[in-house]
Amino acid sequence: MSFQNPVFIPGPTNMPEALRKAVDMPTLDHRSPLFGQILHPALAGVKKILKSETAEIFVFPSTGTGGWETAITNTLNAGDKILAARNGMFSHRWIDMCQRHGLDVQVVETPWGAGIPADRYEEILTADKGHEIKVVLATHNETATGVKSDIAAIRRALDAAGHPALLFVDGVSSIASMDFRMDEWGVDIAVTGSQKGFMLPPGLAIVGFSPKAMKAADTATLPRTFFDIKDMAAGYANSAYPYTPSIGLLNGLNMACGMLLDEGLENVFARHHRIAEGVRAAVRAWGLELCAVSPDIYSDSVSAIRTPDGFDANKFVSLAAEKYGVAFGTGLGEVAGKVFRIGHLGSLTDVMALSGIATAEMVMADLGLNIQLGSGVAAAQDYYRGNSANSAKAAA
Amino acid sequence: MSFQNPVFIPGPTNMPEALRKAVDMPTLDHRSPLFGQILHPALAGVKKILKSETAEIFVFPSTGTGGWETAITNTLNAGDKILAARNGMFSHRWIDMCQRHGLDVQVVETPWGAGIPADRYEEILTADKGHEIKVVLATHNETATGVKSDIAAIRRALDAAGHPALLFVDGVSSIASMDFRMDEWGVDIAVTGSQKGFMLPPGLAIVGFSPKAMKAADTATLPRTFFDIKDMAAGYANSAYPYTPSIGLLNGLNMACGMLLDEGLENVFARHHRIAEGVRAAVRAWGLELCAVSPDIYSDSVSAIRTPDGFDANKFVSLAAEKYGVAFGTGLGEVAGKVFRIGHLGSLTDVMALSGIATAEMVMADLGLNIQLGSGVAAAQDYYRGNSANSAKAAA
Amino acid sequence: MSFQNPVFIPGPTNMPEALRKAVDMPTLDHRSPLFGQILHPALAGVKKILKSETAEIFVFPSTGTGGWETAITNTLNAGDKILAARNGMFSHRWIDMCQRHGLDVQVVETPWGAGIPADRYEEILTADKGHEIKVVLATHNETATGVKSDIAAIRRALDAAGHPALLFVDGVSSIASMDFRMDEWGVDIAVTGSQKGFMLPPGLAIVGFSPKAMKAADTATLPRTFFDIKDMAAGYANSAYPYTPSIGLLNGLNMACGMLLDEGLENVFARHHRIAEGVRAAVRAWGLELCAVSPDIYSDSVSAIRTPDGFDANKFVSLAAEKYGVAFGTGLGEVAGKVFRIGHLGSLTDVMALSGIATAEMVMADLGLNIQLGSGVAAAQDYYRGNSANSAKAAA
Amino acid sequence: MSFQNPVFIPGPTNMPEALRKAVDMPTLDHRSPLFGQILHPALAGVKKILKSETAEIFVFPSTGTGGWETAITNTLNAGDKILAARNGMFSHRWIDMCQRHGLDVQVVETPWGAGIPADRYEEILTADKGHEIKVVLATHNETATGVKSDIAAIRRALDAAGHPALLFVDGVSSIASMDFRMDEWGVDIAVTGSQKGFMLPPGLAIVGFSPKAMKAADTATLPRTFFDIKDMAAGYANSAYPYTPSIGLLNGLNMACGMLLDEGLENVFARHHRIAEGVRAAVRAWGLELCAVSPDIYSDSVSAIRTPDGFDANKFVSLAAEKYGVAFGTGLGEVAGKVFRIGHLGSLTDVMALSGIATAEMVMADLGLNIQLGSGVAAAQDYYRGNSANSAKAAA
Repeated sequence: MSFQNPVFIPGPTNMPEALRKAVDMPTLDHRSPLFGQILHPALAGVKKILKSETAEIFVFPSTGTGGWETAITNTLNAGDKILAARNGMFSHRWIDMCQRHGLDVQVVETPWGAGIPADRYEEILTADKGHEIKVVLATHNETATGVKSDIAAIRRALDAAGHPALLFVDGVSSIASMDFRMDEWGVDIAVTGSQKGFMLPPGLAIVGFSPKAMKAADTATLPRTFFDIKDMAAGYANSAYPYTPSIGLLNGLNMACGMLLDEGLENVFARHHRIAEGVRAAVRAWGLELCAVSPDIYSDSVSAIRTPDGFDANKFVSLAAEKYGVAFGTGLGEVAGKVFRIGHLGSLTDVMALSGIATAEMVMADLGLNIQLGSGVAAAQDYYRGNSANSAKAAA
Repeated sequence: MSFQNPVFIPGPTNMPEALRKAVDMPTLDHRSPLFGQILHPALAGVKKILKSETAEIFVFPSTGTGGWETAITNTLNAGDKILAARNGMFSHRWIDMCQRHGLDVQVVETPWGAGIPADRYEEILTADKGHEIKVVLATHNETATGVKSDIAAIRRALDAAGHPALLFVDGVSSIASMDFRMDEWGVDIAVTGSQKGFMLPPGLAIVGFSPKAMKAADTATLPRTFFDIKDMAAGYANSAYPYTPSIGLLNGLNMACGMLLDEGLENVFARHHRIAEGVRAAVRAWGLELCAVSPDIYSDSVSAIRTPDGFDANKFVSLAAEKYGVAFGTGLGEVAGKVFRIGHLGSLTDVMALSGIATAEMVMADLGLNIQLGSGVAAAQDYYRGNSANSAKAAA
Repeated sequence: MSFQNPVFIPGPTNMPEALRKAVDMPTLDHRSPLFGQILHPALAGVKKILKSETAEIFVFPSTGTGGWETAITNTLNAGDKILAARNGMFSHRWIDMCQRHGLDVQVVETPWGAGIPADRYEEILTADKGHEIKVVLATHNETATGVKSDIAAIRRALDAAGHPALLFVDGVSSIASMDFRMDEWGVDIAVTGSQKGFMLPPGLAIVGFSPKAMKAADTATLPRTFFDIKDMAAGYANSAYPYTPSIGLLNGLNMACGMLLDEGLENVFARHHRIAEGVRAAVRAWGLELCAVSPDIYSDSVSAIRTPDGFDANKFVSLAAEKYGVAFGTGLGEVAGKVFRIGHLGSLTDVMALSGIATAEMVMADLGLNIQLGSGVAAAQDYYRGNSANSAKAAA
Repeated sequence: MSFQNPVFIPGPTNMPEALRKAVDMPTLDHRSPLFGQILHPALAGVKKILKSETAEIFVFPSTGTGGWETAITNTLNAGDKILAARNGMFSHRWIDMCQRHGLDVQVVETPWGAGIPADRYEEILTADKGHEIKVVLATHNETATGVKSDIAAIRRALDAAGHPALLFVDGVSSIASMDFRMDEWGVDIAVTGSQKGFMLPPGLAIVGFSPKAMKAADTATLPRTFFDIKDMAAGYANSAYPYTPSIGLLNGLNMACGMLLDEGLENVFARHHRIAEGVRAAVRAWGLELCAVSPDIYSDSVSAIRTPDGFDANKFVSLAAEKYGVAFGTGLGEVAGKVFRIGHLGSLTDVMALSGIATAEMVMADLGLNIQLGSGVAAAQDYYRGNSANSAKAAA
């Protein structure tokens, strides 16, 4: 198994050496006082990264999908109405989960490549005079299409409609990579995982609950035990878990928060933007287009790149892996075969990004696309040279 | 944080060096063909360790608790009737989970320290002419009390009653440490985790479903998504997961199975029995008693030791940690304050066990118990000397 | 400290994950039988990599410099005459060492950028009728200039002159990266280290002694203890060392040999040639020249690239480190300030090499050199695309 | 290969987790400024641990044996006279090295088990009116016999004799474990290694030179290159090495110094004394005797234990390894077969020590010695209980 090249999937990301070492911890008694010295700073760190003063943070041995389930099962009752937009595979899956749990989802079908239409949300919420909609879902960053949605606009839509619904945001591929403001945007539940902006191995669902969401948990009757936040909160009060926690990953989470906060969140976001801009410059130089339909919704954590009609984008991903040992992301769902994705989040430098761009060029040339070798690299180099933030100081 | 001494909690266990290194893996694309080369051998290895020819194995980024939830939500409908014995904290918790999910549990209250009364199960099952009981729960090894129950006897009870209920077994602290025979005992769902007999960090729920249990999943309506085995099975068919798997832990699981099978399961069990017998010899030498009421139900993975009346066993655990840096298990639930526990499962040698026994002696003496220093050590030494299986060949 | 980018120094190299883990070993008693199970296969592996049937291998806790000292102090007497060519910093240093130890070195001054002049060696050896020259030194690969010399030609020079001098070869930056044939070329002592072709951390001097060199050790009187091969040989006979060995590094050496031999030495050499050819294609595309004066002496482990007159090549190395976090090699000695070096040995893929080439382009542009961004990358891509040996199968 | 049990050899020691991780570093360019940020604090840390204000510290990729060679070759000329006592295998080896390098050693033969006779040194030095003796050697802690010598007394001997000889001290198994005062004792060269009190893997020779020793290096003519301190000093002035340094080990050394100084040297020494006292209590309880003839010379880093006449102590070490997977030290040289050794230095707790004591009891009983199982353990427990320094705070 070769681990020499960086990965360019949109998570799990490349991991900093220090975080791998933090996770690789000898056995520590999770009922000893030492555990609290890991747990509480980790929770506090996540809270800062969510930019929240009031959220309660819960971390489950699970994944972002488990975070979605945590959100809905702790706040809702069977038959409750939900509003959601479907604009990619991950928004689709959350909707599907809600339906499986007996919730009534009003789906706003949205082009894959577009952001969540806040104006449609506002119309629907305004029309919902009886406030039957209990929760509004929003996928902050659609990992499948590389599209960022405007959560502040959704909050404005709720406010304009005077609607009391809870706002749940999937920030799996945005939090800790792109700007996220839980309190300012009035987010009631934020969901993320360990393997994206936190640059850790997969294995943690990380959720933040606003006081309003906590209150909803008092009356929610959807069945839950593993993902029950009340059990978790009771445990935390004793520096413990209701079951065996993923101690090493929590230790890593604590250190990841420290690294990100030391770097400064705005610097973290700027770093992601800078790496992403280089990739996008390369895409333009290739004469290709992003799946994301306009610059204001370009994701800084992943770019989905449309390949020419008739070209099977899956072949790109396979050949890159087989011939060059480099992992890119495939297209999913509606855009399967039509896009390939370059993940550019987590522990990545401009130098690493250039190797991904160079590989993509070779693969496209190998597959007969009319790509000039070095063209995307040159465009990215030009951008990186002029926008250096001293990459050596990036997350180590 | 000191990691010098072994831990004597009943999981997470001490970890072999090789497994820590297997888990600490650089980022690997979980959608690449390489992932299948980890996943499938890991699943096949677990199946062998369960001694099953027919089970389907599912591994979730979760814990044993998530395994319990997987078992019930994939096979049952709200209101379904379940039979279970409560003889310790972990059987209690599974019962509690069932009730939270709207199941109707007939609880056989059993002394904490006794095994599951197979005869009572038989009576109840025989009386259930309408076969309303859909599932029988059994905790193979009660981690809270150090009590092993006879699963074969429960199977005989079901058969004697001619009852078609499914048999679900919690083998979290028995599987891969003590004899477990899924097919021979007619177990329909076996549940375990990564951090006990598999000697890995916590973070995996490992479950095996019999064909009969798989069939129940076709009609079960309890809501589930994260723990849905059909999604998981569909993923496995493509060497994939419905979400991001815990790749490093799966790599570790694959290697752990290899190590255990290379050692030979009977040798693994004999090794655990041997270490446990030394600990029990020490307990006898101290003049103390196990929580487990008779030798036939002594657990080979954990011993719960009753302290004299009036003695607060919690102080034992605290002082051992504070003064000697050694982690033992506390008493839980009904036996809180009345027992302390020595975990002796996973990667442990007689030499390590002796250090735990010696520490326990110091702590008891420090707390005023009438313990002769060295007495338990001598009893264990005597046993280990005469029953050496060349500990150097034990799991490395 | 950032470890995200690959290094492009000519050693220590990028390390495969598996070798790092092999080196990072818990404490093992170096006087236990287990140690022999590491030592002997490691020695046997090195012997195969040297392509020798007869050499005795010695591994010291030291570096290549210690290997040079081992070679001379174990075979020579004060005042002995030596023949050596000086064509770079490392040949210079070995000559200097000989002089410090009281040896009489006849130095063939050779342009830095040229290989060892075998014809001059032949003239001198032929003229040495009295066979006063005891040893001929040859630096197989001058790391400072990226120049490979023809050791077979030097052997032919010795043979043509009918001269019995011993032939000592510094293969520090060639062995395990480029073809080396100890027996076929009649090499009497081969010297290397752990941190180049073996892809390990620094800390080992690795030497091979021919039977003829072993015999010389019987009468050599230069003082030595730490580097005494007789003590070492006596130790090895008991699977031991005369002092505490670097156990982890030896474990890594054993595994490194296994990896290299599994890949196949000819494949290893072809891989290095391929990566090097891509780098050289980039250099040509930039319109720059190598320090090495002709293609037959191009090194496959390191390229020294001449920068235009008036340009301070040291600035290149500094800026690459500061601005992009990438390490290249500086010029040393006579070529200080005139060249920068790209190390392309050890655990490196074409994809990694492209990131180094791309970085070099940015740095040169930043420093005002007339370099077209992407030009070297394109040339290398073109080469790598057409000469893919499935890099994913390279040393992992 | 089993790494489950602690080792009880007198080095390499058990290693703290944090130091292993510090050593296991990705490749870092040793010519980059980052290297200086490791090197200089490491040198400063060693200086503090030597309790010197004026020493220059040099660290070689080598071992303590290389440190001995550094000491003599950098300060002496062939034929120079040296005074040394031989009271164990390691003092013997240093004497032997001096002789091989053409030095004239006046050997004070001393019983193995006794300390260096400072009074004999004084007589000889007083008699040496011409000050022909250039250097006095002293092995601070004879690892072979577990004997500590009184370096302050040797300094007094030199002073009483008014003799200007340099004082070289082998502190390989004392420094960082037992009190060592370079300046106060007037030590001119102190020699140690990485794998004892510094709790690191082997691979470093660590030496401190007083100003007087530095001056001697100006005129010393013994041949040397690898171990030349002037080259090393010149390198350090540029934050560099004359060859490739062991970067990971230096990183570990830096952290080890930090850990030791954070704990406080006096606490480190007290911890070693405490662990050693427990072991000695066990030896007394067994009715055995130490090789060291009186309590004032008992070593706190290793105990050599005499076995009864006719008993082959080597069998003890073999059986402990084979049957119990535990490494003890054998007897060396004159005491081979007569003693076994328990190393109790480095990263060790009382709990770990008890497992070693318990193992020793089992082995002795297995080999037919009249040992009461548990007796030594009880004696050590009794001591540790009453002298707890909160072992959990020991080096982690």
